[in-house]
Amino acid sequence: MIITFLTDFGMRDGYVAQMKGVAAGITDATLVDISHAVPAHNVRKAAYILQSVVPYYPVGSVHVVVVDPGVGTERKGLIVTTQSHVFVGPDNGVLMPAAHFLGDFVVYELYDSSYLLNTVSNTFHGRDIFAPVAAHITKGVPFDKLGKITDTYVDLSFGTAEFRDHRIRGSVMYIDHFGNVVTNIPGLQMLDVVGFGSKVSLSFPHITVDVTFQKTYGAVQKKEPLLTIGSNNYVELGVNQGNAAQQFSLREDLAFELCY
Amino acid sequence: MIITFLTDFGMRDGYVAQMKGVAAGITDATLVDISHAVPAHNVRKAAYILQSVVPYYPVGSVHVVVVDPGVGTERKGLIVTTQSHVFVGPDNGVLMPAAHFLGDFVVYELYDSSYLLNTVSNTFHGRDIFAPVAAHITKGVPFDKLGKITDTYVDLSFGTAEFRDHRIRGSVMYIDHFGNVVTNIPGLQMLDVVGFGSKVSLSFPHITVDVTFQKTYGAVQKKEPLLTIGSNNYVELGVNQGNAAQQFSLREDLAFELCY
Amino acid sequence: MIITFLTDFGMRDGYVAQMKGVAAGITDATLVDISHAVPAHNVRKAAYILQSVVPYYPVGSVHVVVVDPGVGTERKGLIVTTQSHVFVGPDNGVLMPAAHFLGDFVVYELYDSSYLLNTVSNTFHGRDIFAPVAAHITKGVPFDKLGKITDTYVDLSFGTAEFRDHRIRGSVMYIDHFGNVVTNIPGLQMLDVVGFGSKVSLSFPHITVDVTFQKTYGAVQKKEPLLTIGSNNYVELGVNQGNAAQQFSLREDLAFELCY
Repeated sequence: MIITFLTDFGMRDGYVAQMKGVAAGITDATLVDISHAVPAHNVRKAAYILQSVVPYYPVGSVHVVVVDPGVGTERKGLIVTTQSHVFVGPDNGVLMPAAHFLGDFVVYELYDSSYLLNTVSNTFHGRDIFAPVAAHITKGVPFDKLGKITDTYVDLSFGTAEFRDHRIRGSVMYIDHFGNVVTNIPGLQMLDVVGFGSKVSLSFPHITVDVTFQKTYGAVQKKEPLLTIGSNNYVELGVNQGNAAQQFSLREDLAFELCY
Repeated sequence: MIITFLTDFGMRDGYVAQMKGVAAGITDATLVDISHAVPAHNVRKAAYILQSVVPYYPVGSVHVVVVDPGVGTERKGLIVTTQSHVFVGPDNGVLMPAAHFLGDFVVYELYDSSYLLNTVSNTFHGRDIFAPVAAHITKGVPFDKLGKITDTYVDLSFGTAEFRDHRIRGSVMYIDHFGNVVTNIPGLQMLDVVGFGSKVSLSFPHITVDVTFQKTYGAVQKKEPLLTIGSNNYVELGVNQGNAAQQFSLREDLAFELCY
Repeated sequence: MIITFLTDFGMRDGYVAQMKGVAAGITDATLVDISHAVPAHNVRKAAYILQSVVPYYPVGSVHVVVVDPGVGTERKGLIVTTQSHVFVGPDNGVLMPAAHFLGDFVVYELYDSSYLLNTVSNTFHGRDIFAPVAAHITKGVPFDKLGKITDTYVDLSFGTAEFRDHRIRGSVMYIDHFGNVVTNIPGLQMLDVVGFGSKVSLSFPHITVDVTFQKTYGAVQKKEPLLTIGSNNYVELGVNQGNAAQQFSLREDLAFELCY
């Protein structure tokens, strides 16, 4: 069994280590870090990282996400269960893109139970609620001992790229730390209509970028931009050995129209 | 069994990985990172992180701390054993606040033994002494094979807040990477004398900060300061979605007087 | 069984976590991070870290290295097997210093096989090829099911220091994050000809540094330079509580002549 952790806590203080200690006191599951360097309170970025990572984890893994600007308010805690993976975290949408990606899911609203830490703080539900809940799930505690099914929750979606007559309307889903700009256009769907080597243009609100659609970064000169299919199977805009997001002043959630 | 590691080595070089390799060659215990981003040689900061994390770990865990400005000098190496946890590291006080926090403890001074690496370097006792000692402890090697009991060691304390007639004398114990200022005032003890919602003032040598004592960060406006009980149960000064340490030019170890 | 990971991916995105998920789906081996903070595409730096860390790991460990500027080009993937350790990564030299350090080795060129992920991307062989290959090795899959023996591969060496008549010709092998400058001069070999306390001078192309050869950093005053034997048993130039690389404008791969 595996429990993964994805937070915006950084690794300078002991917060992540407290969560792992709590989990390790309950379960022998292997504890794996996804990332703790999500920018503070960036729910969207965490949601994308979660969605991109989860498909590579064994069936039955439990994923704890604590990017939680609403801690201490009335926001609920959730378990989201799919056929293959379980997510535990705050009700702010951060768990939902991964859940949608995997298919059918059921949402449980966590309630107060003996499975939480004895004292639940106002500021650190990751340690006091989410970590112990995840650990008990790996021990076989049934979901309905931990929460009750709900159909009221905050949803989050990166939108669906629209394909029409030589145009694709898309948006920026994620910018990675290399500055590569991941769009919400599925790579294989684009490849159906645009061949490698073709010229395309992307019109953002403030700039139009002309590039070629290529199989690999190495297909263009150093510092030259290109469109390619990234490792998560989405179309991405990059610059060979450069930083596309900086060069073209792009940010996450920006809409664009791609013409081919 | 769990061995945790807390150092100021960073993760850029292979130093932490060398320690883990040594431990993994001796024991099957699970190896967990507390933090490797302690500022270089900051014994006090490491001591606080250790104290704050240890209570969340299972009984029997062994904690290795290598924040060790005195490596290569005559400073001793220690095992500090409590009823529930074991600490291994240099004799510079870094292990002591956690030991005091847990209650009764016994200190062993490490001596040269066959349980250390064959060659002990002058510069890296974490790898050559502390990691193998911790690993052998998880394998059941008795403490007296590793060191001898001593009552001479460097102690370290964050002091005790003094409560008197509408004043509390305290000091800054820790500043976390959000800029939240953790004091040495126990949260519940303050709550006995000051109700949530009350106005209080903190007089530092260079500045007096007027705030309200609140249950959660969300109780004040964005960028407004507040006093609250942090996740480690100490009173902390914060700024909602801001950085209190920067805003008020506060640093660790600073004394103050709180009036209510 | 242990699988280690050494990359230049950073921990901000989910790339490292994807590799670990793939491995964890195949094997129960313990997954250990060496470092993910290698400067981007710095093959030489990764090669040194690998060489310095591997000797501390248990026999039979498998080490995955993904510092891979050539991903998506025709560069091969390799398994390099020694008597004690196995390395998996790109054919750019990054695995070779560690292999030479351990002694006899055999190189396999990876070929397409059912042991890779079903879909191999052009941009992320670490996840799609190297991680699953390493995981299958820990499960006992024989090397010749994964690749074929080759004697054509990119080699990499840090060179051998030359000792002659009161002069040693060496080069800078590595600069760690403290700014300590690790040379390729074996410490014990130097100690055979230069006693601790002796004065020596190092002539770099742009500067000559006069220092004493000391047993420990503490033997010189704060901010004073010294030559010592570092924790990896090579001669290193440091500044007590300072940054030697910055102070003397040194960089990796720089040649020098040491006179004693």
